[in-house]
Amino acid sequence: MQKKLNVVPFVNVDHMMKIIHAIGIKTFLVELASYIEEDFSRWELFDKTPRLASHSSEGVIELMPTSDGLTYSFKYVNGHPKNTKEGLQTVTAFGMLAEVGNGYPVLLSEMTILTALRTAATSALAAKYLAPKNARTMAIIGNGAQSEFQAMAFKAMLGITDLRLFDIDPEASAKCLKNLAGFGFDITVCASTQEAVEGAQIITTVTADKQYATILTDNMIGGAVHINAIGGDCPGKTELHRDILLRSDIFVEYAPQTRIEGEIQQLEKTHPVTEMFQVINGEKKGRTSAAQITLFDSVGFATEDFSALRYIRDRFAQTGFYQELDLLADPDEPRDLFGMVLRSI
Amino acid sequence: MQKKLNVVPFVNVDHMMKIIHAIGIKTFLVELASYIEEDFSRWELFDKTPRLASHSSEGVIELMPTSDGLTYSFKYVNGHPKNTKEGLQTVTAFGMLAEVGNGYPVLLSEMTILTALRTAATSALAAKYLAPKNARTMAIIGNGAQSEFQAMAFKAMLGITDLRLFDIDPEASAKCLKNLAGFGFDITVCASTQEAVEGAQIITTVTADKQYATILTDNMIGGAVHINAIGGDCPGKTELHRDILLRSDIFVEYAPQTRIEGEIQQLEKTHPVTEMFQVINGEKKGRTSAAQITLFDSVGFATEDFSALRYIRDRFAQTGFYQELDLLADPDEPRDLFGMVLRSI
Repeated sequence: MQKKLNVVPFVNVDHMMKIIHAIGIKTFLVELASYIEEDFSRWELFDKTPRLASHSSEGVIELMPTSDGLTYSFKYVNGHPKNTKEGLQTVTAFGMLAEVGNGYPVLLSEMTILTALRTAATSALAAKYLAPKNARTMAIIGNGAQSEFQAMAFKAMLGITDLRLFDIDPEASAKCLKNLAGFGFDITVCASTQEAVEGAQIITTVTADKQYATILTDNMIGGAVHINAIGGDCPGKTELHRDILLRSDIFVEYAPQTRIEGEIQQLEKTHPVTEMFQVINGEKKGRTSAAQITLFDSVGFATEDFSALRYIRDRFAQTGFYQELDLLADPDEPRDLFGMVLRSI
Repeated sequence: MQKKLNVVPFVNVDHMMKIIHAIGIKTFLVELASYIEEDFSRWELFDKTPRLASHSSEGVIELMPTSDGLTYSFKYVNGHPKNTKEGLQTVTAFGMLAEVGNGYPVLLSEMTILTALRTAATSALAAKYLAPKNARTMAIIGNGAQSEFQAMAFKAMLGITDLRLFDIDPEASAKCLKNLAGFGFDITVCASTQEAVEGAQIITTVTADKQYATILTDNMIGGAVHINAIGGDCPGKTELHRDILLRSDIFVEYAPQTRIEGEIQQLEKTHPVTEMFQVINGEKKGRTSAAQITLFDSVGFATEDFSALRYIRDRFAQTGFYQELDLLADPDEPRDLFGMVLRSI
């Protein structure tokens, strides 16, 4: 059968939710993490362009392209912290996969939900290499849109059972508590960050203010802990006190980007960090001692979106949840674009 | 009525053709050129990031973003010269407009056809300032997908009535001749570039080879002519002999990009060129004498796509040709993305 050259499959928001339920959210997260891990393990193949950011006083719009030489992907994503007050999402996103060989798009997908899943899967993947062995308790500081996805990924991949929640807005913690009921967690809502981190082997910080904040101060953190820092992800936005960074072994996705956007923007440009692909490939060690503080300074990288889109490309057809978009002009004779328009009347 | 926050209007290929017919292709080109001219006239407002190109041995995939501070746009476009042999388009494209204030997309549109129209409208707009007065005859060297759009735009905006066509493939010229029948042109199909440029006041070069080519040599060109060079538009791809450039007054869209991609990549980085916005704003002169050779070294710039998307945004609703895409996740409570997924079953 002749492939319809004008058509690009599109996974919309409703389709994405149906795909998640069809696969099961835990299986989805585990499989997605394996795609991310696979792409980290062939890191040197990827075209690692820094994201192209358009900053304004109210937020940022970014394009995040990458390619492994055969397949190209990009994601459009915005970050506007004030949106929440207006009933809008802080982050919305969509993305595309295309063939490098002919430049034709092969998949367009919503990525607001998919980004939430890939961020959580990446965090849990890093923690698999970095967190203390047999960690069971995770603190989540910041109980907004990303918090439940983090909890689910850490349960599916590391066996986290106990959650300690804190948010400056108690309603956010209440929402997180309610959403996670029925998934088998033992959940404690805490009155402060200090209280939330007590006894936690993993501390996830995922707050949304676009400013230098100090969610974690040095006195809160003992040793033998893994810090999963998600919220410090653009210039001028950090969550951790500098002193914690100095006591930690720091792991990042792609150092040139993280030095601009991550927690380590507070440090000298020469401060040693380890890129996660080196750990996944066995070139560098992850956690080396029980007492160590490991820090995954996550800002999100284009290869993770590539992996997520690749995963959806491999799953959407079998679940059947997609629609066909008439996105590409396809004249019978390629040079006859004008004739196609002329005859379309 | 509450605006549906999840929905983004999408103008597909079929819609775009219907919009063109509803408006009329000549009116469309003239109105589109006025949008491009308006945006050139407020040039300093635009964020002029160079395009983000991903080159491979077979072609290029580019993202072209820009913003005027209120509205953001980007275009995805590929260029794969070998595609034609496989029955595919050399260039396919789509693009998006979004609000800078909240990052939400407001329009997704096919741009394969729209790019062809904006390229032609930009060429004719530049020629309005640069071509010899009362030019009636245009040579078109390269009779592929862009050629008829050029002819239509130059007829609508400059009153070009006589066309002299040449292509190394006679079938391309035959296609162009056939498509333009009924639009009131006097058309001569020529056997060589030399023959085609005879008596032409405007010479449009729009060939597609991805290599240094010399479509126009110095001895072909007298004076009193405007050269509209469209096809030299990426590193390593040029159409004109260097000696012609040295005899011409050169006009470009955005010098930093054109020095990499345009004909002027053959010249010193300091060779003087004039940016079109300066001519449109009256800061610099366009054509100053009848005998002058003017050259518009066009590579296509992101503001032109911005203008084209802005034009479609102002027209699609009244023509009714669009569909609604469920592109953006819109939970009732913005922080409750997980809850939305959970309850969607």
